[in-house]
Amino acid sequence: MELLEQRIQKDGLVKAGNVLKVDSFLNHQIDISLLNEIGKEFKRLFADTKINKILTIEASGIAIAAIVAQYFDVPVVFAKKTQSINLDGSVYTTKIQSFTHQRVYDVIVSKKYLSPDDHILVVDDFLANGCAVEGLIDIIQSSGATLEGVGIIIEKGFQDGGKRLREKGIRVESLAIVDAMDAATGQITFRH
Amino acid sequence: MELLEQRIQKDGLVKAGNVLKVDSFLNHQIDISLLNEIGKEFKRLFADTKINKILTIEASGIAIAAIVAQYFDVPVVFAKKTQSINLDGSVYTTKIQSFTHQRVYDVIVSKKYLSPDDHILVVDDFLANGCAVEGLIDIIQSSGATLEGVGIIIEKGFQDGGKRLREKGIRVESLAIVDAMDAATGQITFRH
Repeated sequence: MELLEQRIQKDGLVKAGNVLKVDSFLNHQIDISLLNEIGKEFKRLFADTKINKILTIEASGIAIAAIVAQYFDVPVVFAKKTQSINLDGSVYTTKIQSFTHQRVYDVIVSKKYLSPDDHILVVDDFLANGCAVEGLIDIIQSSGATLEGVGIIIEKGFQDGGKRLREKGIRVESLAIVDAMDAATGQITFRH
Repeated sequence: MELLEQRIQKDGLVKAGNVLKVDSFLNHQIDISLLNEIGKEFKRLFADTKINKILTIEASGIAIAAIVAQYFDVPVVFAKKTQSINLDGSVYTTKIQSFTHQRVYDVIVSKKYLSPDDHILVVDDFLANGCAVEGLIDIIQSSGATLEGVGIIIEKGFQDGGKRLREKGIRVESLAIVDAMDAATGQITFRH
């Protein structure tokens, strides 16, 4: 997606340790106009599917899911990272390793909001090692719902998450795939 | 807001300890159509202000802020509850007591995304004791930005957060104010 790649080139910051910071427009401050363009693009890419619900994980995924959901005219469910006393005990649960935060999260979705009738689009901001998406897929499988596909804004193509998901036959649409980044020069190379 | 009160009556669950669960449409599964109506209503209520940024706090606030922001045509900034290694050290910080999760959070906003030029609308799902909103106001004051107002979806009118904010001269617009709830009967009484 040309507009997105231009924005990453302009405002993304490459840091040591293969960190790509996009918190000026995607996951701390959020450019809602850009998310609307992203929503239109996911709708175009998944036009042939019968998605009735969008699943993401807190926190960065939520804004994306909310805006994207408007183009599919469906509700959003977001997986929660810790057990809240406001949630019933009746939840699907999985564990997700976060490399950003260097810890393992318990992730839950209430059983009320995923069922075998559901056709799910998973969306998230980043796909790197794939742990977050695999956790969400684990929850979808527990619920008996159908995974229609995975929509990612930025895939780190030099990590193996996307490859592993596609090898399992999962449809992954990434709007920008970064094949290489150089923290010294700030250069970002996209896959085309 | 009539539509919202009807939805709370229909799908809200009153639990012991003054807990109002709205996770079927607001803070776990999210009805995006309802949020669009909420966005229109906040725009109507704050039409006389010159808001250029919406501030909220993860996680439930993010979907609300993202949809509402479309009606103001402004970006969103969400405060983060824990220090991420992906964030610079240059942050505004405050502490917020969460009664839901029975702990104190360190909350941060990068100094890059709030400045004295900003005119801020704070939005959140609930206002009860007011700790979350007061934490966000503390961050706004540290940045020198101007707080234009606070937009809340559900205010628990029997707790003192809204009263305390209004007594300080802060403009608080709550789309539904619950004056009483009865866990035994499920009855919810709104202020009109």
